[in-house]
Amino acid sequence: MSAAHDLAADALIKAIADCFTALGIAGDDALIVAEDLVAADLEGVASHGAMLVPMYLDRIKSGSVSRRSKGEILSDREAAVVLDAGHALGQLTARQAVDLAVERARKYGMATIAVRNAFHFGTAGRYARMLADQGCVGMVMSNTRPLMPVTGGAEALVGNNPIAIAVPSAGEFAPEVDMAMSAAAMGKIRNAAAAGQSIPEGWAADRQGTPTTDPKAAIDGMLLPAAGPKGFGLAFIIDLLSGGLSGGAMGANVRPLYGKLDDPYQCSNVFIAIDVGHFVARPEYEQRAKSEQDRVSASRLAPGVDRVYAPGEFAHAARQRAGGRVKLSAAAYDSLIEAGTALGLDLRSFI
Amino acid sequence: MSAAHDLAADALIKAIADCFTALGIAGDDALIVAEDLVAADLEGVASHGAMLVPMYLDRIKSGSVSRRSKGEILSDREAAVVLDAGHALGQLTARQAVDLAVERARKYGMATIAVRNAFHFGTAGRYARMLADQGCVGMVMSNTRPLMPVTGGAEALVGNNPIAIAVPSAGEFAPEVDMAMSAAAMGKIRNAAAAGQSIPEGWAADRQGTPTTDPKAAIDGMLLPAAGPKGFGLAFIIDLLSGGLSGGAMGANVRPLYGKLDDPYQCSNVFIAIDVGHFVARPEYEQRAKSEQDRVSASRLAPGVDRVYAPGEFAHAARQRAGGRVKLSAAAYDSLIEAGTALGLDLRSFI
Repeated sequence: MSAAHDLAADALIKAIADCFTALGIAGDDALIVAEDLVAADLEGVASHGAMLVPMYLDRIKSGSVSRRSKGEILSDREAAVVLDAGHALGQLTARQAVDLAVERARKYGMATIAVRNAFHFGTAGRYARMLADQGCVGMVMSNTRPLMPVTGGAEALVGNNPIAIAVPSAGEFAPEVDMAMSAAAMGKIRNAAAAGQSIPEGWAADRQGTPTTDPKAAIDGMLLPAAGPKGFGLAFIIDLLSGGLSGGAMGANVRPLYGKLDDPYQCSNVFIAIDVGHFVARPEYEQRAKSEQDRVSASRLAPGVDRVYAPGEFAHAARQRAGGRVKLSAAAYDSLIEAGTALGLDLRSFI
Repeated sequence: MSAAHDLAADALIKAIADCFTALGIAGDDALIVAEDLVAADLEGVASHGAMLVPMYLDRIKSGSVSRRSKGEILSDREAAVVLDAGHALGQLTARQAVDLAVERARKYGMATIAVRNAFHFGTAGRYARMLADQGCVGMVMSNTRPLMPVTGGAEALVGNNPIAIAVPSAGEFAPEVDMAMSAAAMGKIRNAAAAGQSIPEGWAADRQGTPTTDPKAAIDGMLLPAAGPKGFGLAFIIDLLSGGLSGGAMGANVRPLYGKLDDPYQCSNVFIAIDVGHFVARPEYEQRAKSEQDRVSASRLAPGVDRVYAPGEFAHAARQRAGGRVKLSAAAYDSLIEAGTALGLDLRSFI
C-alpha cells in the first residue's frame, strides 16, 4: 500500500470545488460542499470526506444528483417547514435547513425542518455544531437504506440512521454526539476482512441473521444495531422522523449510496433547533455546559488509561492536531486526480 | 421466596391512591399517580411501578416531595416553557408538561417544556405515548444522579438518563423506544448478586473503573453506558438538555432516589412535542408508521427465533397479556400493606 498524501486542506478544498464547478455547480456552492467534505478529513473521518468526491461527481453526471443550489419549500407553518431537496448536493440543503431552523427557533423557541429527496450531506455533526454555534441545541438526523435486522430477525429493515446532537458551550468546542445506530461501521468490517482478522461479537450477523465474527459472512450479511434493541429502536424512530415528517422516503425506498449511480439516493433528514436563550440566559447555559465538559475531561482515570475525552472532544482534538492539513489515502488521492483528469483538470498541479 | 400476588389493577390503583390521599394529596392527583405507577406494572416493569409507593410516601412525610398539584411556570415564550415542579409528584408535573406541550405544538408545530426541581415520574414512555396519542412525536427525557463513568474514567459522572420517543401510528400501538443509557439496569445486577451469578462483560466497572463481571464489585462500582461512548455521549447530552434548558439540577446535583429521604430528588426533565399534522397529513403519517411497524413485526426470522418485536410491541404485548391484572412480588406487596397500616389503612381488605 502506498503512503497517504499529506495535503493542505485549503488546496484540497479548491481542487474539489474545481471539480464541481467543471460539472456546472455554481462556484459558491462548490466551495461549500468542498469545505464540508474536507472538514470530515480534518476530523479524521475519511469515510465522509474527500474520498466521496468521485462518487458525487459520477452522480451529478448521471443526473441522480441535481445542480440545484437550494431545496424548494413545500410547506411552511410556523416552526415546521418541509423542504424538497430536489436531489441537490446534501451539504447545500443541510445549510439551507440550518439557516431556516435558526431563523424559526429565534422566533418560536424551536423549529423543525424536515427534508425529503435529499442527497448525502457528509457528517451530521457538522450541521449540529453550526446550530450550536448559533446558540441552539442542534439535532440532525438522516435515514439510510436498510442495513440492520430487528433483534432476532434475518433481513435488513432499517438503516444505521445517524443522529448528531450538539449544544452551545462557553468551552473551546461544542459538546457533541454524532453516531450511527450500528455497533460498528461497515468500513471497519471491510478492513478486518482485508487484514484477515475476525470481528468482535455484536458487530454483524450473516445473511441468515445469525451473529458472526467472520468479516466475510458479515459483508454478505447485515450490520447489527448498537446495544441491540436500543440501537434498533432509535434507528427505527429516526426513520419515522426523517421520512415521516418530510413525507419522503424511508425504509427500502432510500437507495444505496454506492448502488446504481443514476438512481437518486433519496434520503430524508430532520434538523431540529432549540434556542437556549428562549429558556434561560444563553451565557449561563453556555457556562454550565462548559463546567460539565470540564468535569468529564478532568475525570479520575481507570488503571492503564492515559486520558479521557468528553463528548465532542475527540473530534476537536483531531481538528487541532490536523493544523489545516489532511492525510488522504493513496487510493482516495488517485481517484480524485483521475476524476479531475476526466473533467479536463490537472489537480496534481496544486495538490 | 414467597409467591407473587395476582391483583386486579383497579383495586391496586385504589389502594395506592388511598395511601396518597391519607397523606393529604388531592384525590384526583392521587388517582393519576396511582394509575401511572400501576401502568408500569401492567407492562411488566415492576421497578417503575407499585414497589415505589412506600418510598414516595416516606418522601411526602419527610417533606422532600410536596403536595402540589402543578408546577409553576417560570418562563413562557412561544413554544418554550420552563416549569418549576416544586418537588411535586413527577406524574403530576409530567402530565402538566404533556398538556402544555400539545397545546403549544398545535399552535407552533412543536414545543419544548423544560422542568426543574422535579420528582420521579415513573416511566418516560408513558408520557411519550400520551404525546403520540395527540398526534405528536413525543420525546421525554430526564436526568438522574451520576451512575456511569466516561469511557476510561474511574468515577460516575452522568446518570443513566432515560429517553423515550413515541410517534403517532394507525397501528394497535405507538412505535416507541424507552431506554436508559446504561447497558443494563442496577436491578439486574442485584438479581445476579443475589443468585450468585456473574454478569456479562460491558454491564459494569468496579470502583477503580476496571470492567468487571462480578456483581458485587459492580454494586460497589459503576454502571457502564450502553454501546460505550455512544451511550455516555447521549446521557451527557440529555443532562445538558434536561438540566440546562430548565435551569435545574444536573450532574451530582440530582440526588439519589433512595438516598436521604428528606433531600429533594431534584431531577430535571424535558418534554418535546412535534405536531405531525404541521408537516404532513396526520392520517398519512399514521398509516406510514403502521406500515413500518408491520414490516418489522413480519420480519423473516433468524434460526431458532420464534418471533420478533417492533419497537413498542413488547410492552404492548405485555399490557395485553396482563388483561388488567398485576403480579406484585411478595416483598412489594408486604411493603405496600405495611405502608397502608402506618397510615391507618387496611389495604388487605381490597387487594
